[in-house]
Amino acid sequence: MPDRNRVQAYLPAGAEAVPNTIGTAPGIWMRLSRAWVAALPGVPGEMKPMFDEFVVPRLRDLGLTAGVTAIRTIHTFGMGESQVESQLLDLTLRGREPEVGITASDAVITLRIVARAPTVAEAEAQIADTESLIRQRLGSLVYGVDGEQLEDVVIRELIARRQTIVTAESVTAGLVSRLLGRVPGASAALLGGVVAYANEVKQGVLGVPESLIRAHGAVSAPGVEAMAAGARLLMGSDYALATSGIAGPTGATATKPIGLVYIGLAWPNGVTSTHVNWFGSREEIQTRSAKSALNMLRLHLEKSKVEPQTNTEKDG
Amino acid sequence: MPDRNRVQAYLPAGAEAVPNTIGTAPGIWMRLSRAWVAALPGVPGEMKPMFDEFVVPRLRDLGLTAGVTAIRTIHTFGMGESQVESQLLDLTLRGREPEVGITASDAVITLRIVARAPTVAEAEAQIADTESLIRQRLGSLVYGVDGEQLEDVVIRELIARRQTIVTAESVTAGLVSRLLGRVPGASAALLGGVVAYANEVKQGVLGVPESLIRAHGAVSAPGVEAMAAGARLLMGSDYALATSGIAGPTGATATKPIGLVYIGLAWPNGVTSTHVNWFGSREEIQTRSAKSALNMLRLHLEKSKVEPQTNTEKDG
Repeated sequence: MPDRNRVQAYLPAGAEAVPNTIGTAPGIWMRLSRAWVAALPGVPGEMKPMFDEFVVPRLRDLGLTAGVTAIRTIHTFGMGESQVESQLLDLTLRGREPEVGITASDAVITLRIVARAPTVAEAEAQIADTESLIRQRLGSLVYGVDGEQLEDVVIRELIARRQTIVTAESVTAGLVSRLLGRVPGASAALLGGVVAYANEVKQGVLGVPESLIRAHGAVSAPGVEAMAAGARLLMGSDYALATSGIAGPTGATATKPIGLVYIGLAWPNGVTSTHVNWFGSREEIQTRSAKSALNMLRLHLEKSKVEPQTNTEKDG
Repeated sequence: MPDRNRVQAYLPAGAEAVPNTIGTAPGIWMRLSRAWVAALPGVPGEMKPMFDEFVVPRLRDLGLTAGVTAIRTIHTFGMGESQVESQLLDLTLRGREPEVGITASDAVITLRIVARAPTVAEAEAQIADTESLIRQRLGSLVYGVDGEQLEDVVIRELIARRQTIVTAESVTAGLVSRLLGRVPGASAALLGGVVAYANEVKQGVLGVPESLIRAHGAVSAPGVEAMAAGARLLMGSDYALATSGIAGPTGATATKPIGLVYIGLAWPNGVTSTHVNWFGSREEIQTRSAKSALNMLRLHLEKSKVEPQTNTEKDG
């Protein structure tokens, strides 16, 4: 734990200090013969804002930025990398401008558009055209751009609607709520959650009937639906997300393999569930399942956004 | 999501396939003129085991490994990087053998011993000597080595004692239970937890008295102690960890700045709490607070392990 008051940096003669608003170590900006030198702390959380806020404007003032590279990433969830790519084959061809690359990280498939042009406006126009093509083809698979995560989208949408969410997690052990809680301002939408690892907690805290667990097991559609409905009732939220599954390395049964995960969603008018079959490590199964849960709520919110246009029934 | 049955790889003539037990793409092992070439998939989770299990033995068989480098990392929690370093100045001197490096990641301070010697036995002897010096100086700051995380140590210790844990999380929003749940076999010790973001959940689910919250606020020693005791009662565990604090970027008050986090621990014979003052981003404050909570339980378990030797009282 650095002590904010202890550090007193010495700078090379002729150097200018680059302010560090996050940590204690300043950076160095100086000219050495014909070169401009920027020395910044190695911690990415400090280095990146110092680069963006200090170094980039200096380079621009010096006329050292020839042309512009603009980058936009578009994130999708719900389909595998090869399936996403098969819908964009013409866009991902080598040599196309702007370039479109595809990467996968924990079941999030990301398209990366890189445009090089003489001006920002031209680069951004290129990106906008390609982004609109991608969105047309992928529809609701696209959940966000650039730094956005599924949890950012879900929290933003809930706050906009003044609605609330709680969680009931078994296989993800708190990861769904932890992801939601990572979003600044999450407390306006996230009331809380229950991590229900033991069946006794599913029964005693969430009110899942023992008979249901005996008949179907906790890793089942009725299981996660009862967990979601129970959590919603317990904490009085609009929505509840529930997860139950087999993350491994042990716990598989004849009918329930490692990677089988049920996800439940309860809302004021009902409850539903789905299941996924992941393969991978315990950690991967947990992470992907948590994202699947967030994505399930995202799609539900998206659908219920357009419903009022076609639905003539109104709540009292 | 790769399809295990779809991939049929073509190999260069004369190449041998390197088996991939995790994913679908095999690696390539072949001789090109005087060089041996190993081409492995870029995914670290696939590449690393393929390197260890296939490439290293081949290099050894070829007599291409001259001498041995052995590495051991020793992880500490509870003291800042500069404080840890000040106790090891002679060990971290440049040129010392074996080398000792120091790194910090999310408040975990890690010592890295690198020994180079003609044989494995000599390298390991060097490491053992230095490790024992480090452990003497740092005592209970050291929680683990190599791949071990705080949650691994806590779960292992709880399972060995056949004891159980639950969580009651506000500021960490489920991260403490999520870390515990990451450990294979965690369900033998982790019963569940409550994420209590809203005060209504702290009151209604954990039984924290409204008057207590009114008098002290939820971010207080009495607050986390009541949360921990409430979670333990609710789910019937041996231990409960609770967190409550201000992660920012909003929520600070005149007396409670961003980064102030209380941590509570309840056990069969009592309840206690501590507080930390982190600075950093919301994410950093949350992550470090979750680790502080795990560390608090680790130290409690460590202390209660040696107590029977000096304590003449016995439980009935």
